[in-house]
Amino acid sequence: MESKQLNKSKIFNDPVYGFISVQDDFVFKIIEHPFFQRLRRIKQLGLTHLVYPGALHTRFHHAMGAMFLMGEAIEVLRSKGQIITNEEAQAVNAAILLHDIGHGPFSHALENCIVYDLSHESISSLFMERLNKEFGGKLQLAIDIFRDKYHKKFLHQLVSSQLDVDRLDYLKRDSFFTGVSEGVISTERIIKMMDVVDDQLVIEAKGIYSIEKFIIARRLMYWQVYLHKTVLAAEFLLVKILKRAKFLAEQGQELFATPTFKEFLFNRYNKDDFEKQPQILDKFAMLDDFDIYASAKVWCDHTDIILATLCRNLVNRHLFHVEIQDHVFHENLINSIRQNTAQKLSISLNDTDYFVFAEKVENSAYNTNSVNINILYKNGDIVDIAQASDQLNISVLSKTVTKYFLCYPKGSH
Amino acid sequence: MESKQLNKSKIFNDPVYGFISVQDDFVFKIIEHPFFQRLRRIKQLGLTHLVYPGALHTRFHHAMGAMFLMGEAIEVLRSKGQIITNEEAQAVNAAILLHDIGHGPFSHALENCIVYDLSHESISSLFMERLNKEFGGKLQLAIDIFRDKYHKKFLHQLVSSQLDVDRLDYLKRDSFFTGVSEGVISTERIIKMMDVVDDQLVIEAKGIYSIEKFIIARRLMYWQVYLHKTVLAAEFLLVKILKRAKFLAEQGQELFATPTFKEFLFNRYNKDDFEKQPQILDKFAMLDDFDIYASAKVWCDHTDIILATLCRNLVNRHLFHVEIQDHVFHENLINSIRQNTAQKLSISLNDTDYFVFAEKVENSAYNTNSVNINILYKNGDIVDIAQASDQLNISVLSKTVTKYFLCYPKGSH
Amino acid sequence: MESKQLNKSKIFNDPVYGFISVQDDFVFKIIEHPFFQRLRRIKQLGLTHLVYPGALHTRFHHAMGAMFLMGEAIEVLRSKGQIITNEEAQAVNAAILLHDIGHGPFSHALENCIVYDLSHESISSLFMERLNKEFGGKLQLAIDIFRDKYHKKFLHQLVSSQLDVDRLDYLKRDSFFTGVSEGVISTERIIKMMDVVDDQLVIEAKGIYSIEKFIIARRLMYWQVYLHKTVLAAEFLLVKILKRAKFLAEQGQELFATPTFKEFLFNRYNKDDFEKQPQILDKFAMLDDFDIYASAKVWCDHTDIILATLCRNLVNRHLFHVEIQDHVFHENLINSIRQNTAQKLSISLNDTDYFVFAEKVENSAYNTNSVNINILYKNGDIVDIAQASDQLNISVLSKTVTKYFLCYPKGSH
Amino acid sequence: MESKQLNKSKIFNDPVYGFISVQDDFVFKIIEHPFFQRLRRIKQLGLTHLVYPGALHTRFHHAMGAMFLMGEAIEVLRSKGQIITNEEAQAVNAAILLHDIGHGPFSHALENCIVYDLSHESISSLFMERLNKEFGGKLQLAIDIFRDKYHKKFLHQLVSSQLDVDRLDYLKRDSFFTGVSEGVISTERIIKMMDVVDDQLVIEAKGIYSIEKFIIARRLMYWQVYLHKTVLAAEFLLVKILKRAKFLAEQGQELFATPTFKEFLFNRYNKDDFEKQPQILDKFAMLDDFDIYASAKVWCDHTDIILATLCRNLVNRHLFHVEIQDHVFHENLINSIRQNTAQKLSISLNDTDYFVFAEKVENSAYNTNSVNINILYKNGDIVDIAQASDQLNISVLSKTVTKYFLCYPKGSH
Repeated sequence: MESKQLNKSKIFNDPVYGFISVQDDFVFKIIEHPFFQRLRRIKQLGLTHLVYPGALHTRFHHAMGAMFLMGEAIEVLRSKGQIITNEEAQAVNAAILLHDIGHGPFSHALENCIVYDLSHESISSLFMERLNKEFGGKLQLAIDIFRDKYHKKFLHQLVSSQLDVDRLDYLKRDSFFTGVSEGVISTERIIKMMDVVDDQLVIEAKGIYSIEKFIIARRLMYWQVYLHKTVLAAEFLLVKILKRAKFLAEQGQELFATPTFKEFLFNRYNKDDFEKQPQILDKFAMLDDFDIYASAKVWCDHTDIILATLCRNLVNRHLFHVEIQDHVFHENLINSIRQNTAQKLSISLNDTDYFVFAEKVENSAYNTNSVNINILYKNGDIVDIAQASDQLNISVLSKTVTKYFLCYPKGSH
Repeated sequence: MESKQLNKSKIFNDPVYGFISVQDDFVFKIIEHPFFQRLRRIKQLGLTHLVYPGALHTRFHHAMGAMFLMGEAIEVLRSKGQIITNEEAQAVNAAILLHDIGHGPFSHALENCIVYDLSHESISSLFMERLNKEFGGKLQLAIDIFRDKYHKKFLHQLVSSQLDVDRLDYLKRDSFFTGVSEGVISTERIIKMMDVVDDQLVIEAKGIYSIEKFIIARRLMYWQVYLHKTVLAAEFLLVKILKRAKFLAEQGQELFATPTFKEFLFNRYNKDDFEKQPQILDKFAMLDDFDIYASAKVWCDHTDIILATLCRNLVNRHLFHVEIQDHVFHENLINSIRQNTAQKLSISLNDTDYFVFAEKVENSAYNTNSVNINILYKNGDIVDIAQASDQLNISVLSKTVTKYFLCYPKGSH
Repeated sequence: MESKQLNKSKIFNDPVYGFISVQDDFVFKIIEHPFFQRLRRIKQLGLTHLVYPGALHTRFHHAMGAMFLMGEAIEVLRSKGQIITNEEAQAVNAAILLHDIGHGPFSHALENCIVYDLSHESISSLFMERLNKEFGGKLQLAIDIFRDKYHKKFLHQLVSSQLDVDRLDYLKRDSFFTGVSEGVISTERIIKMMDVVDDQLVIEAKGIYSIEKFIIARRLMYWQVYLHKTVLAAEFLLVKILKRAKFLAEQGQELFATPTFKEFLFNRYNKDDFEKQPQILDKFAMLDDFDIYASAKVWCDHTDIILATLCRNLVNRHLFHVEIQDHVFHENLINSIRQNTAQKLSISLNDTDYFVFAEKVENSAYNTNSVNINILYKNGDIVDIAQASDQLNISVLSKTVTKYFLCYPKGSH
Repeated sequence: MESKQLNKSKIFNDPVYGFISVQDDFVFKIIEHPFFQRLRRIKQLGLTHLVYPGALHTRFHHAMGAMFLMGEAIEVLRSKGQIITNEEAQAVNAAILLHDIGHGPFSHALENCIVYDLSHESISSLFMERLNKEFGGKLQLAIDIFRDKYHKKFLHQLVSSQLDVDRLDYLKRDSFFTGVSEGVISTERIIKMMDVVDDQLVIEAKGIYSIEKFIIARRLMYWQVYLHKTVLAAEFLLVKILKRAKFLAEQGQELFATPTFKEFLFNRYNKDDFEKQPQILDKFAMLDDFDIYASAKVWCDHTDIILATLCRNLVNRHLFHVEIQDHVFHENLINSIRQNTAQKLSISLNDTDYFVFAEKVENSAYNTNSVNINILYKNGDIVDIAQASDQLNISVLSKTVTKYFLCYPKGSH
């Protein structure tokens, strides 16, 4: 029966939400597209699994989860009398599915290592335009919402704001797969409290503690997981490997790599190239975690001792030793470690930069300059969470915390 | 086989931790004692189940859970080289089991309504002394630790401090049974980070975010559950019922009640009485949720219209309407509602106090005057969490938040 | 705003499903009715909490949960093209809410102890009729569905069959609150597989393993929880208490009890009485766990040694010793224990029946004579699960397992 | 402090059990060895993630989890008076860590595709011997237990039997990551029921329902996950890719691959080779999921249309259509589909074997010929679960279920 077929939804298993149903045929087409299927091969959290072994989940799974939450949000808003047409619902679903499609291998870990002056957001944009062409313009509304060009602003806020379904999903999902239970948030409770006033997404006042909890949980996940010092050590190790490989490539040295990866190792494509040569995007679409890791494994036996050492350290999980503190590390300390390292590895002082380096990371729990989180009171007042919270006041929330860390090989200090 | 019997542990099922094993015979004897079994009939969260229907768990279950966490904490501390003798382990287990044994019907909800100048802590103390006599002094060490008279202070801190196993269990358990998932804390992670330095319980620095999360989760549970306005409305309703019943009792009116409950309705026992007449404690030990509720149900048909109305409201869950705000309610408003109520219910203006009343509740996330939570850094420094946290600073943490609320019958305003 | 008010749903917190929304005003009225609110005071699993301390959940919570699953089932069936009108949806929701409203104190534990020839199903029927009158006939369709008088048979099957939402909820809920994780079933997966063919509820073939799992999980819950030997010991203790109290009442002995409970202790109401005297149902509606337990506590001091002993055993959790086996216990054994007990308690041999007794329990995993569970194959074939399952064949599934158990006071054998 | 250092345990995060502690230094050394770290790059469930997107967990995580359960089992057995020396405890931990170390890329999916007459068990054995040499014989006891050569047979049964910690972990873990909640088993409850009688691992009789549940859950996981028809389709696709690549390699065609993979593509190593040339094992130790997948991706552009088509189908998740039934597929049907496919893809009828093929899968819930699961009754009797279960009798449990399935390209029939 045709009519039944149309009704039949596709079901995806998800340990986080149980089942994710897809009823819209166009949305399902996006999911089936090779560009989107590629996200199955890009881990959501880069090399975090070297610290939290369960964190192997992919961008694909996250995008599906965010779409699930979008569906919940649409249902809640409609039940409160907000009008969201079927076309708009389809468009926000498409927009959230594609919001991070521009991510390259290992997500954030290798951002700026493979392509230079192009953020993953820009590449997402390029992908969307390409798909829009393929689908005969059917993605235009999704793109408009994504770029905040659509007149109903709250739809964009669902896709991208400080309380969008993207954040709601990744906190819950990352918490689930890492096992860091403190990151668990009640996405269901938060979404049930959503409403729209004057085209602004708002949270009903009785949800204020859930919002505070969400902000604190996000902050906890940042320091406990995303910026965990050993995770940073692992990801910087991969960055250094890429850097060395690129250096050798530029020197004209032979270097094993998958053809796709070679393309990006031996060329330096920028924004302009991507826009003018559409086939570069196609090549980028073939690149994922497998290319990088399979190549790095081969480099364990490279004649370049720096590259080989770095790669063996990655493969055998001999990560850097990391120190972390709230002020910069003293030059003298760094230099002394560099000298030890140079001697120990028989490399030049200059090259110790691959093994000894100081960096900093920053995080603020809430950004008062970004689209804020609004609390709706019973009397109709709307107040920024930073004002509304009785304890987590503005000065606390907006403070940027900076931490400095120093990596070096174990035993070099 | 005797030896096997000795080894065999008793196992309690617990949906929160899975299984709770009791291997110590003396500890098991305490659990089997009628004083402790009585806790099976006292709900941990009073009338909270009228708002969160799952919150029917008892003091018994909480005490068992806290004992489970105590066992985990002992194991962790011993594995870090801290010395805790078997005798001390038995004593802290006994102390945590008995820490709240003095609670009366509906826990906090009726504190000061049944017995006057005696806190539940004082009654706990009386119970412990009585048990100590029964057990031939075997509880002395537990009592010393409970009262912070034992030279190893950290043992007392495990039983009672701002990060004791009591709090760890009740947050997790209350969160589980209410379904307020934001209250979930990682008791396992926090306990793994425990250590002792200079006889002080400390938390290793890498656990700092879990501690912040714990403080915020506790605060959330306060406002979302313990001080939820409808929970307050329900509990004050019960308080008003008790007050009216006592008033009628003092007037010499007939009043159905279980004999045990009658004893406390028609007498006004104070601390002195409890100390001089041991049989009062025995009577108190027979009093629980069942006596109060069964009697209140009978009072639905009492000739006193005030008592009958209040009781019917409880039984049929017609709770007060509650308004909540951050400043006091205006006298005029209250008076006007009182007048409406007097007219509507045909009672004197004076008696409207049973139906219309303003109260306040307070909460602070962290008490800087109490035993503080110490963070241990790798260099050996120990810092109060209020100083150690980079964002939740002292002024924020220690601030007391006050909320004012006004209860009145639905439709009286 | 009126329109918004209408849209606004009432939300109930539930640790099992998260939130349960009620959008239908009439359904909400049923929930608010004192007859339904009374279910808050009747534990779903009687005295099971004496073995599984978390099992304090109530009939109220179960009925709400079953209604939640009904909503899910309706949504799934509608999405597959089945027609369920809003009126029918309201009616099945009402029917499932009220399906067990006739349960008395401690649910099954005391069935037949308080009222004699009336099953809880019959009392449920009486309650529904009464409510139907009160609501001006608005419950008629619900009653018709409940009694399987409505032409769409599958609606009745959702309310009552071997795979109804009642069973789905109680297995999941009882598993949750006892902590017996093996009882967990995927209600979501089973409901997603539901469909209707020829007015029969069917399960799509790919759900067959979930159904097998459901049948096995139910069987496990029977032996591990519902018919757990210590649970049986506790519940029979309460039965014996009721029996002795009734005996004493009939002897004209004085007996403390709440007035409502007295009514049923000192009278022997049967079906006829319930039908002719409507006020009896009103009295029954005031009876719950609190009346029984509060009275039993008082009887601990009764002059009748049998009653007092039984009640103290209950209150202090000195449960019978239980032996369980798959064949009947030998008369000689029972008699010898009776004689010991008579001597030990100084009671007549006849009266030892209160302390020493043999009973049997039965359970079959699947009843082939009842409404069966149908599996729908892709080719349109519909097959009974007992035939469809490749391993759990009919002979296995339908076999009734009988176990015999013997209770007696500890130390009497 | 040295002593403290010794005590300090390494902690691994695990979303399934919370934390996994490793206190034994030798066991930690095994975990850190490159042979074991390699398991981080081999997915536990091959290509199952193409159906259950969360199922990306690795052999590393499973081995760690099994070791965690081994620790629980040792603790329980010791608490029941069983003697397990520290040396034996270390050895069973090592044995369980290494029990599956011989798995190649994608675990079972590619068994026999990369190496021919060597099961993963044999390769595990080779790895253990190699490691034993490296560790100076310290693994001998672990190896003896693994091979059931040690006099305490129950230690081997913990490592390998029908109720070993391997099965307990993989059922729980696979259930967790796939989200198939019906597979959840209570590992904690089962382990608490373990004991040893006459050197046989037994389960106390009251655990019988948990064991039945375990057997049924395992069966459910087989049909719902491990032998799910789409999972089979995905894994056979990979098998066909390997077969074609090997064929082309043998033809002398050029074929991109990582050097390690090339070694196994262009050579046909057998058992004899592995034993005589130790360096082959070293090469095998460098092979993992990344080599296979990265190479397959490159082959999407290969000039051989068969290889290219198969690889594109994998990468873009265009899986075979699968039919499944309980009897063999008719030759005529298969031939007709082959002809359609040959025409459609312009390949020879012979080559359609890469796209059209019939296979069968088998499973039995319980193997009566293998080491059985023993139930220990209170009277000391020990009975095989197949006899002990009152419903899941031997004939049911031991029956082998066979299913036949037919794969072909979508639209070829």
